[in-house]
Amino acid sequence: MNFGIVGRVLGYLVLFIGAFMALPALFAWHYGGDDLAAILISSALTAAAGGLLILVFRPKGELLVKDSFAVVAFGWLLASTFGALPFLLSGHIPSFGDAFFESMSGFTTTGASILQRVEDLPHGLLFWRSLTHWLGGMGIIVLSLAILPMIGAGGTQLYKVEIPGPAPDKITPRVRQTATALWGVYLVLTGLETLLLLVGGMNLHEALCQTFGTVATGGFSTRTASIGGFHSLFVEAVVIVFMLLAGTNFTLHFHSLRGRPSAYWKSEEFRFYLGVVGVFAVLLTIDNVLAGAQRAGEAVRHSVFQTVSITTTTGFSTADFGQWSPSAQFILLFLMFIGGCAGSTGGSIKILRVMILIKQGLAELKKLLHPRAVIPVRIDGRSVPPGVVVNILGFMFLYLGLLIVSTLAMSLMGLDLVSAFSSVTASLGNIGPGLGLVGPAANYQAVPPAGKWLLSFCMLAGRLEIYTVLVLFTRDFWK
Amino acid sequence: MNFGIVGRVLGYLVLFIGAFMALPALFAWHYGGDDLAAILISSALTAAAGGLLILVFRPKGELLVKDSFAVVAFGWLLASTFGALPFLLSGHIPSFGDAFFESMSGFTTTGASILQRVEDLPHGLLFWRSLTHWLGGMGIIVLSLAILPMIGAGGTQLYKVEIPGPAPDKITPRVRQTATALWGVYLVLTGLETLLLLVGGMNLHEALCQTFGTVATGGFSTRTASIGGFHSLFVEAVVIVFMLLAGTNFTLHFHSLRGRPSAYWKSEEFRFYLGVVGVFAVLLTIDNVLAGAQRAGEAVRHSVFQTVSITTTTGFSTADFGQWSPSAQFILLFLMFIGGCAGSTGGSIKILRVMILIKQGLAELKKLLHPRAVIPVRIDGRSVPPGVVVNILGFMFLYLGLLIVSTLAMSLMGLDLVSAFSSVTASLGNIGPGLGLVGPAANYQAVPPAGKWLLSFCMLAGRLEIYTVLVLFTRDFWK
Repeated sequence: MNFGIVGRVLGYLVLFIGAFMALPALFAWHYGGDDLAAILISSALTAAAGGLLILVFRPKGELLVKDSFAVVAFGWLLASTFGALPFLLSGHIPSFGDAFFESMSGFTTTGASILQRVEDLPHGLLFWRSLTHWLGGMGIIVLSLAILPMIGAGGTQLYKVEIPGPAPDKITPRVRQTATALWGVYLVLTGLETLLLLVGGMNLHEALCQTFGTVATGGFSTRTASIGGFHSLFVEAVVIVFMLLAGTNFTLHFHSLRGRPSAYWKSEEFRFYLGVVGVFAVLLTIDNVLAGAQRAGEAVRHSVFQTVSITTTTGFSTADFGQWSPSAQFILLFLMFIGGCAGSTGGSIKILRVMILIKQGLAELKKLLHPRAVIPVRIDGRSVPPGVVVNILGFMFLYLGLLIVSTLAMSLMGLDLVSAFSSVTASLGNIGPGLGLVGPAANYQAVPPAGKWLLSFCMLAGRLEIYTVLVLFTRDFWK
Repeated sequence: MNFGIVGRVLGYLVLFIGAFMALPALFAWHYGGDDLAAILISSALTAAAGGLLILVFRPKGELLVKDSFAVVAFGWLLASTFGALPFLLSGHIPSFGDAFFESMSGFTTTGASILQRVEDLPHGLLFWRSLTHWLGGMGIIVLSLAILPMIGAGGTQLYKVEIPGPAPDKITPRVRQTATALWGVYLVLTGLETLLLLVGGMNLHEALCQTFGTVATGGFSTRTASIGGFHSLFVEAVVIVFMLLAGTNFTLHFHSLRGRPSAYWKSEEFRFYLGVVGVFAVLLTIDNVLAGAQRAGEAVRHSVFQTVSITTTTGFSTADFGQWSPSAQFILLFLMFIGGCAGSTGGSIKILRVMILIKQGLAELKKLLHPRAVIPVRIDGRSVPPGVVVNILGFMFLYLGLLIVSTLAMSLMGLDLVSAFSSVTASLGNIGPGLGLVGPAANYQAVPPAGKWLLSFCMLAGRLEIYTVLVLFTRDFWK
């Protein structure tokens, strides 16, 4: 590993986080909260730490693939550590484990919270909490559309961004170019949703916070009752649309904004994504109508919202689905494994991988009847190389392996099977709420400290497509 | 499909089942139960149906791969249907759905039961119930070591039996030769365990029934409390050893009986299998000791028994593990997915597939750091062709797909998540008891009728490695 260059890049990152940390001070000052000093001190400390890193580390040579892993993994770790400072120093989240959990949950766009009552937090801290989502979302866009495709991790070579750029051997210029283009898209989405939510009656603080939670598929809200707390069909509709947009491959938005909206319909992944949302929204509605606890209109409204929220791994809620029927809960638990499109801010396994797995499974079945037939798996008309399929198998193995080991650990801490399994599922998939003890009407406060650390790790591993984190634990990496 | 030859082979199979069905009459007569007439009539009806099939169907040509699927799938269906007759005609299981469930559970060596009190069944029926296990085990040995490897289904080409035989294009002579050799092994195991259980104080009826349940990794017992009902450490030790032997690739036993016992230690799968059992037995013991509800000696005894019983997919129990800690329950639920060795009578995913998945996953991780490195996955020193890995991926996809869809269906019938998931897991993996509603101290009586049919289907699909059953639903198959 090239410590010099990695340290320097991390320094810039921490400095950048520190600068953004000053923004919430505006809201703290405006609303006269008790969090102003803590925010300013945290921001200064973070910026200073970043500056120190920049001074200490002297870059030599180029940033290589190996080094980019280190930047990504340590970058998220440092961001989450410094991001915990405002919660900690203000005294509003006095335990470091809890503050780190909340911050990691923010930067990984998970949205799992240890707060019993969200409204108890002053406006500055609430804004910072939502801003961590938005910054995390920026990071994910770079990671999933610029860094991972270049190294072909876990089948990501399939979703290379088709933006002309310099030769792929030098990592920096290409990353910069792709990031700039797609951050533009991200800003457009952010601006549009904020405007619409302002029109819907929110104040600027509320509109920005819910928007950050949406476009990053995060899920932190400024109300304990989440989006349901706004009691507005318009707000829910806006959030549904932007959750769907945030769960879409950003490359498609990029092409669309450049005047080629047909890109959406040409993408098989996008069609499949809408298909999944459509089918499960209908299933869930039928289930809720049959269960009889809600009127038909309500059932449609909550079912559609919840399907979109979970599939895109946002985790907002308008109803306590922990009270729905076992089958409705199972549908939502199942959706937690699908996730958004590749190249979106959504987490979990992702639509593209699920599609390839399904097509491969069907091809296998045909091959059994025609042993000599060659049945290629195709996406968008192009056949998927066998290496990609094997790659995805490797990813699934790691994902399920981590899920199983972590669920075992959570159950060893005394959580019942449903709570243990769903808390890990919701953390690995960067969703937020689970079922049982950690359901949408509850929070992660009751999880024992060791469990919070483990779930924080799961959020990070899930967010960084697991490979990027696990690679740090190999001997080869440190050579 | 060659209806002539398939019908003829099925005719012989039904005749064979009918003949074996007369055996329990001996016990019915000896113990003077009310089941004698029902058993004799069922046997006669079954044999007659078999004879009729033989008369009606005139074979033309050779048995091809396609046809062998039909023989296997319809064979198990017919066996289970006729196998339900004694339960039904005697009036002891008056519902056909229940009788079919019990019979399917027997022939698929699952061991899930709808009986509230096993002891209520007369001796003849109890013997028939256990005999269905033993006959099902015979079928599995042929299927997994003679039929499936020939067609390379789901990676089974790896465990081809190395018994010299005629060219593989003609299916019949090779199947006959392999079956004869391995049924010899099966008979030796059956004889030995029966003897040891007689020594352990059981009468002939009890010894044979528990033996059938063990060597077929079935799990039907003659007592409601299962093996725990015998209160004998010796009996438990014998059953543990024979469950382990039954979960081993029968080819290894074959080589060992031919004077090459080193075959065991040369097999990587066998070593891994013992490793899994060892590690999880220790984990479960620690868990049970920490939970504090059992004395240390008891904890070891029950933990080892339960680990072996679930890993081999037998499903016998000596304790109600439904009362154990959440983590202990999770360990057992996890073991339900591993299963016995390939080429054993054990079900579920199987050790060989799990090994290849793990090795592939680790290779993927290495490849990420060394993108140009070629890292072959090796089993017993030979590299696994990539096609096999892709095959296993296809199998896993179908297995998990069926698991998810069936769990959804079970939860729609009102079962809670743990009961729904574990009942499907235990049926697909041919284990028997699950958790919650269908735990080891309970039974499948409370499952709604539609659920029993679905679980019966899962048992069949799991037993026949899924491919063989699903292929029947494709249009190509019937052409």
